[in-house]
Amino acid sequence: MQKKYAVGIDLGGTNLRVALVSRDGEIIKKIKVATTEEVLNSLSDAVDSFFSDEVAGIGIGVAGLISREEGKVLTSPNLHVIEKIDLVNEIKEKFRVPVLIENDANAAAFGEMWVGSGRKFSSFVLFTLGTGIGGGIIYRRKLLNIPAEIGHMSINADGEKCPCGNSGCLESYASGRAILSGAVSSLEKGRESLLKEYSAGNIYKLTAEDVYKAALDGDTFARELLKNAGRYLGIGFANVINIMSPEAIVLSGGLVGAWDIYVQEAIREASRRAFRELYDKVKIVPSVLMDDAGITGSAGLIFHST
Amino acid sequence: MQKKYAVGIDLGGTNLRVALVSRDGEIIKKIKVATTEEVLNSLSDAVDSFFSDEVAGIGIGVAGLISREEGKVLTSPNLHVIEKIDLVNEIKEKFRVPVLIENDANAAAFGEMWVGSGRKFSSFVLFTLGTGIGGGIIYRRKLLNIPAEIGHMSINADGEKCPCGNSGCLESYASGRAILSGAVSSLEKGRESLLKEYSAGNIYKLTAEDVYKAALDGDTFARELLKNAGRYLGIGFANVINIMSPEAIVLSGGLVGAWDIYVQEAIREASRRAFRELYDKVKIVPSVLMDDAGITGSAGLIFHST
Repeated sequence: MQKKYAVGIDLGGTNLRVALVSRDGEIIKKIKVATTEEVLNSLSDAVDSFFSDEVAGIGIGVAGLISREEGKVLTSPNLHVIEKIDLVNEIKEKFRVPVLIENDANAAAFGEMWVGSGRKFSSFVLFTLGTGIGGGIIYRRKLLNIPAEIGHMSINADGEKCPCGNSGCLESYASGRAILSGAVSSLEKGRESLLKEYSAGNIYKLTAEDVYKAALDGDTFARELLKNAGRYLGIGFANVINIMSPEAIVLSGGLVGAWDIYVQEAIREASRRAFRELYDKVKIVPSVLMDDAGITGSAGLIFHST
Repeated sequence: MQKKYAVGIDLGGTNLRVALVSRDGEIIKKIKVATTEEVLNSLSDAVDSFFSDEVAGIGIGVAGLISREEGKVLTSPNLHVIEKIDLVNEIKEKFRVPVLIENDANAAAFGEMWVGSGRKFSSFVLFTLGTGIGGGIIYRRKLLNIPAEIGHMSINADGEKCPCGNSGCLESYASGRAILSGAVSSLEKGRESLLKEYSAGNIYKLTAEDVYKAALDGDTFARELLKNAGRYLGIGFANVINIMSPEAIVLSGGLVGAWDIYVQEAIREASRRAFRELYDKVKIVPSVLMDDAGITGSAGLIFHST
């Protein structure tokens, strides 16, 4: 008899999210813990608390470059400790069920296709808009087995050097980190803004949400920061549209909350830049699964590959 | 009984190339004529001269955006007349065999996969490096049905406006047209170079081949032009590697002749920029079919879709 559940794991930079997911994509239960150096132990413990004979397998989404075939994390900029672990085999040995690994944004794209905003599209590109920018590409209802590191596409040949090795990466202009770094450097120079009040004396603790709130409260500087980042995001959209011509671009991650300013500006910029015939075919829509896309998709990959 | 041949057509900006191709990808005969406003007539006549009961179908590769499903050319910047023609149906009516349309670089990518440099790769990206820059993407031995307009990916957010609508397109920095426009604008300002002699008094008649020849003859300026264009091409390579992680990048088009300076510089730049783990997996190789990739691939698509 078919087992009822899969465990889906989203191993981002700061949090480890684990869920028990049913065959129709419903999250039965989930937990979130902070990631530590002891990531393998935390992960094992979390899975353990959900495990039963009804678990068909364990899918792990990891922020970084992964090798599906070798079951390894090649590089994970925010969680280097994971690069040295034989992740898939360790977990497989412990739980004796199929285990697979996928990039977290790819897993999220799969989740959106399965039970999210991507259900009705044959092909779409997912952008994860958070601290960094990730991507996943669905083509004819299949997740492409490619890194889809859209955030590390150079959109400014001689722009700032990115830790990834490239220069002028989309992520350096359009991500949450980029918005905050722009905020901090101007505030340090004495730029007047509501953000100063919001930060309660420590501008280094501001979040992208603070910037959006200040913008909604009429702060010109916060608005500028978001529009500027949005404009660059639109260049990323245009490049993706000209290359892939997807039916949709699906947006997830914390910055989607700033839709009215940040995403709207991106849409405007993309409409000016992409081939008209291709732009007219693409729908730009928010994720419905949001933070749950990764855990849902990682579990879904188990049902659809075992 | 299976018909033995297909007719492959490559409808570029300046030339119309037509070939009779066998089921094993061999070109039996081919012709090349200049494209005129009477493109449908020239095309019909050319096909007519190759046509027989042994022709399984006609594949047409066109420079520009096409819609496979509607059998139409959406936009062809160098051959606008073709946009108003119901190309597939006109040809189908006349010859009564299956007719299909594809982007020329996509058709070339298919040709390379079938009987060219791509034979041994499961996934690769073809760059056509000529007056402009085109692309085609092969994934798991299938041609992706996407525009793959790699030349119209912005690599310089606030760069020069491109007629396509985008700004700072790869094509504006790394193509034959870009190299020549750089040459002409500096020569106009009095820059000393062998290119002046080569042009025999008319610098507007210089070709990208002239630039390569001058570079080989030790001309510093010509060398600079090629290296500069190559550096930008390398940014395009890095972006494609970070997104697609193909097993290979296959290069075709006239500029491949300038491999030692232009392509070598691109490879160096890509190696500095792309994720190390992905760069190490990619092979960068020249096309073997070169000018025949488009006609071969267009014909091949007939055998593999009928």
